[in-house]
Amino acid sequence: MFHHSSKLQYHVKVDKPDPQFAKYLQQAIGGVEGEIRVAMQYMFQAMGARGDAKYRDLLMMTATEELSHIEFLGHAVALNLEGAPVTAQEEAAKDPIVNAIMGGMNPRHVLSSGLSAMPVDSSGVPFDMSHIYATGNLAADMTANAMAEGSGRVLASRLYNMTDDQGMKDMLSFLIARDTMHQQQWLAVIEELGGMEAALPIPNSTPESHEATNHSYYFLNTSLDEDTPEGRWSKGKSLDGKAEFSVVSPPEPLGQKPDLGKARKHSGAQKEQM
Amino acid sequence: MFHHSSKLQYHVKVDKPDPQFAKYLQQAIGGVEGEIRVAMQYMFQAMGARGDAKYRDLLMMTATEELSHIEFLGHAVALNLEGAPVTAQEEAAKDPIVNAIMGGMNPRHVLSSGLSAMPVDSSGVPFDMSHIYATGNLAADMTANAMAEGSGRVLASRLYNMTDDQGMKDMLSFLIARDTMHQQQWLAVIEELGGMEAALPIPNSTPESHEATNHSYYFLNTSLDEDTPEGRWSKGKSLDGKAEFSVVSPPEPLGQKPDLGKARKHSGAQKEQM
Amino acid sequence: MFHHSSKLQYHVKVDKPDPQFAKYLQQAIGGVEGEIRVAMQYMFQAMGARGDAKYRDLLMMTATEELSHIEFLGHAVALNLEGAPVTAQEEAAKDPIVNAIMGGMNPRHVLSSGLSAMPVDSSGVPFDMSHIYATGNLAADMTANAMAEGSGRVLASRLYNMTDDQGMKDMLSFLIARDTMHQQQWLAVIEELGGMEAALPIPNSTPESHEATNHSYYFLNTSLDEDTPEGRWSKGKSLDGKAEFSVVSPPEPLGQKPDLGKARKHSGAQKEQM
Amino acid sequence: MFHHSSKLQYHVKVDKPDPQFAKYLQQAIGGVEGEIRVAMQYMFQAMGARGDAKYRDLLMMTATEELSHIEFLGHAVALNLEGAPVTAQEEAAKDPIVNAIMGGMNPRHVLSSGLSAMPVDSSGVPFDMSHIYATGNLAADMTANAMAEGSGRVLASRLYNMTDDQGMKDMLSFLIARDTMHQQQWLAVIEELGGMEAALPIPNSTPESHEATNHSYYFLNTSLDEDTPEGRWSKGKSLDGKAEFSVVSPPEPLGQKPDLGKARKHSGAQKEQM
Amino acid sequence: MFHHSSKLQYHVKVDKPDPQFAKYLQQAIGGVEGEIRVAMQYMFQAMGARGDAKYRDLLMMTATEELSHIEFLGHAVALNLEGAPVTAQEEAAKDPIVNAIMGGMNPRHVLSSGLSAMPVDSSGVPFDMSHIYATGNLAADMTANAMAEGSGRVLASRLYNMTDDQGMKDMLSFLIARDTMHQQQWLAVIEELGGMEAALPIPNSTPESHEATNHSYYFLNTSLDEDTPEGRWSKGKSLDGKAEFSVVSPPEPLGQKPDLGKARKHSGAQKEQM
Amino acid sequence: MFHHSSKLQYHVKVDKPDPQFAKYLQQAIGGVEGEIRVAMQYMFQAMGARGDAKYRDLLMMTATEELSHIEFLGHAVALNLEGAPVTAQEEAAKDPIVNAIMGGMNPRHVLSSGLSAMPVDSSGVPFDMSHIYATGNLAADMTANAMAEGSGRVLASRLYNMTDDQGMKDMLSFLIARDTMHQQQWLAVIEELGGMEAALPIPNSTPESHEATNHSYYFLNTSLDEDTPEGRWSKGKSLDGKAEFSVVSPPEPLGQKPDLGKARKHSGAQKEQM
Repeated sequence: MFHHSSKLQYHVKVDKPDPQFAKYLQQAIGGVEGEIRVAMQYMFQAMGARGDAKYRDLLMMTATEELSHIEFLGHAVALNLEGAPVTAQEEAAKDPIVNAIMGGMNPRHVLSSGLSAMPVDSSGVPFDMSHIYATGNLAADMTANAMAEGSGRVLASRLYNMTDDQGMKDMLSFLIARDTMHQQQWLAVIEELGGMEAALPIPNSTPESHEATNHSYYFLNTSLDEDTPEGRWSKGKSLDGKAEFSVVSPPEPLGQKPDLGKARKHSGAQKEQM
Repeated sequence: MFHHSSKLQYHVKVDKPDPQFAKYLQQAIGGVEGEIRVAMQYMFQAMGARGDAKYRDLLMMTATEELSHIEFLGHAVALNLEGAPVTAQEEAAKDPIVNAIMGGMNPRHVLSSGLSAMPVDSSGVPFDMSHIYATGNLAADMTANAMAEGSGRVLASRLYNMTDDQGMKDMLSFLIARDTMHQQQWLAVIEELGGMEAALPIPNSTPESHEATNHSYYFLNTSLDEDTPEGRWSKGKSLDGKAEFSVVSPPEPLGQKPDLGKARKHSGAQKEQM
Repeated sequence: MFHHSSKLQYHVKVDKPDPQFAKYLQQAIGGVEGEIRVAMQYMFQAMGARGDAKYRDLLMMTATEELSHIEFLGHAVALNLEGAPVTAQEEAAKDPIVNAIMGGMNPRHVLSSGLSAMPVDSSGVPFDMSHIYATGNLAADMTANAMAEGSGRVLASRLYNMTDDQGMKDMLSFLIARDTMHQQQWLAVIEELGGMEAALPIPNSTPESHEATNHSYYFLNTSLDEDTPEGRWSKGKSLDGKAEFSVVSPPEPLGQKPDLGKARKHSGAQKEQM
Repeated sequence: MFHHSSKLQYHVKVDKPDPQFAKYLQQAIGGVEGEIRVAMQYMFQAMGARGDAKYRDLLMMTATEELSHIEFLGHAVALNLEGAPVTAQEEAAKDPIVNAIMGGMNPRHVLSSGLSAMPVDSSGVPFDMSHIYATGNLAADMTANAMAEGSGRVLASRLYNMTDDQGMKDMLSFLIARDTMHQQQWLAVIEELGGMEAALPIPNSTPESHEATNHSYYFLNTSLDEDTPEGRWSKGKSLDGKAEFSVVSPPEPLGQKPDLGKARKHSGAQKEQM
Repeated sequence: MFHHSSKLQYHVKVDKPDPQFAKYLQQAIGGVEGEIRVAMQYMFQAMGARGDAKYRDLLMMTATEELSHIEFLGHAVALNLEGAPVTAQEEAAKDPIVNAIMGGMNPRHVLSSGLSAMPVDSSGVPFDMSHIYATGNLAADMTANAMAEGSGRVLASRLYNMTDDQGMKDMLSFLIARDTMHQQQWLAVIEELGGMEAALPIPNSTPESHEATNHSYYFLNTSLDEDTPEGRWSKGKSLDGKAEFSVVSPPEPLGQKPDLGKARKHSGAQKEQM
Repeated sequence: MFHHSSKLQYHVKVDKPDPQFAKYLQQAIGGVEGEIRVAMQYMFQAMGARGDAKYRDLLMMTATEELSHIEFLGHAVALNLEGAPVTAQEEAAKDPIVNAIMGGMNPRHVLSSGLSAMPVDSSGVPFDMSHIYATGNLAADMTANAMAEGSGRVLASRLYNMTDDQGMKDMLSFLIARDTMHQQQWLAVIEELGGMEAALPIPNSTPESHEATNHSYYFLNTSLDEDTPEGRWSKGKSLDGKAEFSVVSPPEPLGQKPDLGKARKHSGAQKEQM
C-alpha cells in the first residue's frame, strides 16, 4: 500500500524559468529513459516477484522512490514554464527572440496542460507502457533495470550540460547520484547470486538439452569484407565458464531455400498465385 | 551495404502446423523481446558508434545475423498457418475443436496477412520502434543489448516448452543457443573495457563535480514497516570501487512542499484558480 | 514524496485460478478505464494544480490510493495465473478444454511476464499515457476524473458479473465501492465551487468577448429527415443560467466553399496541379 | 447515412498566414481535445446506443456537426501554411527569422502533407482511436462527452489567445460558442434523467449487493503529514443521496502481505527463484 | 459541411449472432484496411486538394460514403454481439463451447463497450491516424487510395468466406462491390491524367536535374546466389517511357566506409569512446 | 540469409552540418514514407509470398537494398549533427541564432541518441510496424509498394528542395532515382500479369457470386448541392473491362433505421436504458 508525504524528495529551485528546458526535462519524466518507466517497471517486477521475498521488497522500495522523482521533476517543469507566453503580442511575429522561445517550446505546455508537466517525452510523444520490462526472471529483470538506470544517468548528465540554471544543475546532480546507486544495486543482486558466471546464460534454468550448444559460443562474422573484430568475445573462456569462444566466418546457411508453394483457394490471393 | 543469399540461416521444419503456435511465435518476431528489435537496435547503435571502430563492426555484423533470424522465424509462422481454416463450415459453430483453434489464432493471420507472418507480437500489437535503445554510450548500449538477449532467451525457452513439434523445438534450440552467445558477447565488451568497475557509473565520463556524490551510494528504504533487505547493495564496497554502500531509513524529504500559486490570467484555468 | 507499507490495501483471495479471468482483470490495470490511468492522471493534475492548495492535496491523496489499487489488482492477476499451462502436453491438441484455456488467455502472460500482471489491457494493448488528462483547469479536470471513475465502475461491475470466484467478487465489490466515492468526490469539488451553473461553460474565465455567443445556446439538428429530439437541451434555461436553449434546423452553412487554388512550384505536387 | 454539402459550416479567413499557428491549430483537429475525437466518440456512442432512441439521434446529429468542424479547421490549417518556405534559400541559415519560422513549424507540414492539415496534434503525434470513449452506459458517456467539450473549450480559448489574426479569432469564437452548447447538452441529458442524484453512482444498475457499501462514502487520506482537505466531499450527504460522507485517516491496510512463493519449473525464471 | 439521414446505406441483418465474427468484423472498421481509414484519408486529401477542384469533390463525396460504411458495419458488430455472455455461469468453466465463445471474443466487447462496436481492429488494437496518407500529390494519393481499396476488398472477401450467416454475406457482398468501384475510380483519375506513363515517376514535377538519372532505371540484384528474376522490370521500355530497364548485378558499393570518429566531450559517451 | 559489406551503398558527404536538416532527414528513415517501412514491408511480403517464386526473390532483393538506404541515411543524420550544441553557453539564451538552432532540432538527438540517427520521423514520433502492408495478395501488395515509393519520392524531392548542401543534394538525387525505379518495378509486376484490366478488381479470385455486382460500377454522389464531377470514372468502360461506369445521384439509403432496443440486464448500462 502506498502513502504520501507533502514535501518533495529533493529541493527544486529554478532561478530563470526556461520553457525550452521544460521541454527537455520532459524526457526525464515521460521518455523511455525517464522516471515513469522505472517507477512502473520496478512496481510490476515487484508484483510478479517469485523466490526470495527480499527482492520483491528491494524492487517495491525503489519503485516508491522513483514515484517521488516523477513528483519533483514535474514541479521543475512547471517552474520552468512560469512566464512562458500565453498570448500573442502584436509585435511578436517580428521579434525573433519571442519566436525562438515559442518555436523551442512544446506547444502543448500552453495548449493542453496549462503550463505544467505532462507524461510525454521531449518530442511530445506520450509514454507507452510497453516499455515496462518485467519477465518474471530475476536476472533478466536486473539487467533491464541496470539498462534503464544506465540510460537514465546518460540522460541526466546531458540535461545537466544543457542548462546554466544553478537550481536545475543542483537537482540534476541529485538525479545523477541516485542513478549511480540504482545502477549498482541491481547489478549487486546479480553479484550476490554468484555473479555473471552463475547467472548466464539467462535464464539459467533452461535445460542444456533444450539448447543446440554447438551454436552457443561462436561469434558469427556476417560481413563479406571485414575481418572479425577481435576481443574478449572471440576467444578465451565464455563468461558463463562453460566453453571457449570461437569465430565462424564466413557463415554458411544451415537452412533450406524457403518455398510456400501456391496460395490456397479462398485465401484472398490473386488467381495467378493459385 | 547489405546483401542476401537465398537459403535460411537455419532449417525450418514444421511437423504438424499449429495456428495457435503461429500466434505465439509472433512474440519472437514482433515482440519487445523479438528479432526486429535486436536487428534494428544493433543497426542503429552501429550507425551511431563513435570511438574504436571495431565496436561498430561487431554491432553491424550481429544486426545482420538478427535480420536472418526474422527471416527464418517468418517462415516458421507461415508453415504453422498451413491448413488453418479460411472458410466457415456449416458445422463449425458446433465443433468446439474448430472453434478453439479459431479462438486461439490471431484472426489477422487470416484476414490481414493471408496466412503469413506479421510484424506484431503474440497479442497482435505491432512492434513500435521506440524500443530501439541506442544512446551513443557504449556501456549503456551493451547493457541494453544484454537485456534484450536475456529477455529474448527467456522467451525462446518458454516457446520451446509450449510446443511438441520436433521441428519447432529444433529451431528454437538454435535460437536459444544464439541468444546465449549474444548475451555474452555484449557483456564481454564491458569486460574488455575493464569490467563493471571501470564502466560504472554509466556514463563514466560525467565529471564528479556534476554529481551530488553524498547521495550516490545509499539504498533508500522507502517502506514504513519493512526492514531494509540486506545484501550486496546495502554494505561493502560499491561496484565502481569508489565508496561504501550504506542505507538510509526512513528517508527524510529534502525538498519543499510544492506550491505553484495562482493560475495566470489567460491561461485557461477557472476563475476560482486565479 | 511517496512511501510504501507492506500489506495490500485490500485482501486478495482467488479460490479457483482462472487464466482467462486474469486477462479480463488486465482491463482494470492497463485499460483506459483502469487504475494506472487514474493514479497517473490525479498525480499529474496535482503536480499542475494552481489555486487553492487543498485541491492539490485532494488529488495527490487519491492518486496515492489508486497506486495501491494497481498493487492489489496485480496480485489478483498473478494468483489467477497460478496453474496456467506453461508446457505443451502431448494430448493437449486433442483436448478442447486445454485449448480453450489457452485460446482464452493472453499468451504474453506465459511468454513475456512469466505468470504475472502487465501494464496492458484485456486485449494485450499496452497503456499509453496520452490518456492522462490534466488541463490545468480545475473544472475540466474534475469532469475528466468523474468520467474516469464512471467508466471504471462500469468496468468493475462487468468484471464482477464475469466471475464466479468469491474472492474475486469480494475484491471487486471493494473496487466498485471506492469508485462510488471517487465519482462523487470529484463532482463534489464542482458543487463546492458553486455547482455547474457557476462552473459552466468551462473554462469560466474566457471573456464573453471571445465567444460568438449567438452560437452558444442552440442545438444543431444536422439530420435531413429526423425531427429534433426534444429534451432539457432544446428549450428552457441553459445550465449556466445565461440564456435560453433553442434549436436550429436545418442548419445553413455559414462559410464559403473552400478552394486552395493551384499547388505551388517545388511543393511536390503533380505538374497537373500547378 | 451521411451526406455533404459544399460550403463550410463556418467562414474561414486568414489575414496573415502563420505556419507556427498552423501547428498549434492541429491540436484542435488531431489532439485528444480535438474534433476527430468528438466526431468519432459521438458516432460510436450513437452506434451502440440502447434505450430511448432519442439519445442515439442526439449523438449522431452532433457527431455530424463535429465532422464539419474538422473540415473547416482543416481549411484553416492549409490557409495558415500558404507561403511557408518550401525551399532553402542561400541566406536562410543566417536569417534568424526564417530559421525561427522553420523551427516553429511542424516539418511534416512541408515534407509529408504538402502544406495541408494532418490528423496529428500540435506535437505531430497522430491521433489514436483509443480515445474514443463509448461504454454503452448513457451517464458514463455523457460525462465523457462533457469532459471532451470542457477540455475542447479550454483549448479553443487558449488558441484564441495565441493568435492576433482577426480571421482566426473569429473562427475560434465560433468554436468556443459551440463547445459551450455541447458541454451543456450532454449534461442536460443527465439532468433530464433525474440529475446526478439519480444517475450516481454510475452505473446506477449495479445491485447494491455487488458493492461493499461500507467503503463507498469515505474519503481516504493517504498522506502521512497532511490533514484531510475539508470540503463538500468530506462530510454531509453524498451526492447520490444515499449516505453521509466521512473521512478515514490514516488508512489501515485491509489486505495481506503479498507472496507468490517460488517460481514454477519451466516458467523461465532463474534457478535461484525455484 | 456534413449532414445525416436516419437510415443505413445498406441493410444489415444478422440471422445468428456470433460474437467471434463481431471481433473479425472489427478489422473492417478499425483495421488498417478498414473504413475509418478510408473515410478519414479521403477527407484529409480533399481538405488539402490543390489543382482542379473536381478532385476535391470526388474525394469528399467518397469520404462521405465511407462514413456511412462505418455506420452500418458498427450496427453489424452490435447485432452479432446480441446474446453474448455477460455473466459467468457456474458450469461455464466446464463447458468447452461457452469457453470457446469467450476465448474467441474480444473481451472488451463486454468489458469496455457494452456489446457494441469499437474503433479497433480484430486484435483489439485501436486505429491510429498515422495511416491517413495524404501527401498533397494527386498521383501519390490516388495510388494510396487504390491500395487502401485493394486491401479493403481482400479483407471483405476473406470476411465473406469466414461466415455462414446469410445476412452478413449479403452485407459483405455490397462492401465487396463498392470496393470494386472505389479501386477503379482512383485509378481512373490517373488514367484521365494521361495514365501511368504521364504520371510516373511520382511526383512528375521533380526537375530532372534533381535526379541522378543514371540510377533511375536498373533493377539491383542484391543477392549473392540468385539470378536476377527476369520480367517486365528488367528489360524493355520503362513505364514512364523515358528509358530502358536494365539490371545491375552484383551491386558495387558507391560509398565510403562510414566513420564517425571519436565521441565529443560532454556528449554522454563513455570515456573510452573519446 | 543476410550479409553485410563495409562500404555504404552511396557516398554521403555533408559540407555544412545542419541539425535542423538532420531532423528533417529523419522522415526518410522513420517516417511512414521512409526506408524502414519499405525494407520491412518488402521483407514481410517476401516471407509470405506464394505463387511464382520469382516475386519472392524480387521482393527480398529490394528489401535488402532498402536496408542499405537506412544505413547511408543514418550516416547522413549523424554527420548533420556534428557540431550541434551539447552544452548551454552563458550567452546562449540571448543569442537568437543559437536558440533557433536548438528550437529547430529534435532535442532527442542530443538527449537520447548522442548525436546520431533514430528510428523516428521528423516530428520525433517512432516508426510503428502497423505500416507494414503485406496482404498475401500480389496485386494488393504491388499497389502498396507503388504507393510507398510514390510517397517516398515526393518526400525525397521535398528534402532536396529544403537543403543547400551539395553533398546532401547529391545523396538525395540518388534516392530520388532509386524511388523512380522502385515505383516502376512494382507496377511492372502488375503489367506483366496482364495489367490493371486483368488484376482488377483486387483480389481477382473473389467469385462473382460473392459480389453484389449491381453496386460495383457506379460512382455515388453523396453531395446535396454539387453535380457529380465528370471524368473517366463516371462513364465509359470500367477499368476491369467488365461493365460501364455510371453515376447514382442522389443516393437512396438501402438499409433500415438502426435500433438496438433496450440494454440487457447485467450489461453495465444505466437503469433507464433497460
